[in-house]
Amino acid sequence: MADYPNPSGRQRRFGNRDDERAVAIDETDSLIASNKVEGTAVYNHQGERLGSIMNFMVDKRSGEVEYAVMSFGGFLGMGQEYYPLPWDILDYDTEQGGYVVDLDEADLEHAPRYEASSEPVYDQAYMTSVQGYYGL
Amino acid sequence: MADYPNPSGRQRRFGNRDDERAVAIDETDSLIASNKVEGTAVYNHQGERLGSIMNFMVDKRSGEVEYAVMSFGGFLGMGQEYYPLPWDILDYDTEQGGYVVDLDEADLEHAPRYEASSEPVYDQAYMTSVQGYYGL
Repeated sequence: MADYPNPSGRQRRFGNRDDERAVAIDETDSLIASNKVEGTAVYNHQGERLGSIMNFMVDKRSGEVEYAVMSFGGFLGMGQEYYPLPWDILDYDTEQGGYVVDLDEADLEHAPRYEASSEPVYDQAYMTSVQGYYGL
Repeated sequence: MADYPNPSGRQRRFGNRDDERAVAIDETDSLIASNKVEGTAVYNHQGERLGSIMNFMVDKRSGEVEYAVMSFGGFLGMGQEYYPLPWDILDYDTEQGGYVVDLDEADLEHAPRYEASSEPVYDQAYMTSVQGYYGL
């Protein structure tokens, strides 16, 4: 975990209600703009940067965000791969200024992913396989 | 309403379940990428182009899209104004390739809006005033 000051004196924890309240207070409101989500870094609990959010997928009917698509690897856009992450497994951490997921690079080795040129159709079968990989 | 062919032979209607099903079939899945929403045109029921989606606001905790922010007016980015529209009043119309809202320019004259330099905090009071304007 990154070594930075913790003004509250409380132990840092991720993904619990306290953190979510802290986010709401820090940013004075509970909404975030779509273009602010895009490009945001994604870290794991060890403070390693896994990638960044390329975009995210919204259910047209319910208006719910279902997946964040994280870009990872590659160089100057070549060989980069895209990982659909269920929105529910991401927590926003104000101190790191990024999303935090409970994954390490080994988890990503077998995770569902695709290259820019072969974006899948997010149909029921594909979404079920993604949810299944993340135990949802 | 714009004059274009209607292959289904059914009367065109907006904002009902039939249209939403049609969208889901046409696009083979029910999700849309965030960066595809941004920049999409917004029309009224008379087929007039009102503006385009600048970005949209997501509730960090629930993951629900609450507002689409429509940009309107101005020239080369000068004098442009931004209108928060409750997500629920937008319907996607595959034939026009854009969102449709039940508003005309007179409705927009008094609608909540802001300039780029004075973006409001989306707090409860502001959101209540926006919802109220649109009768929600």
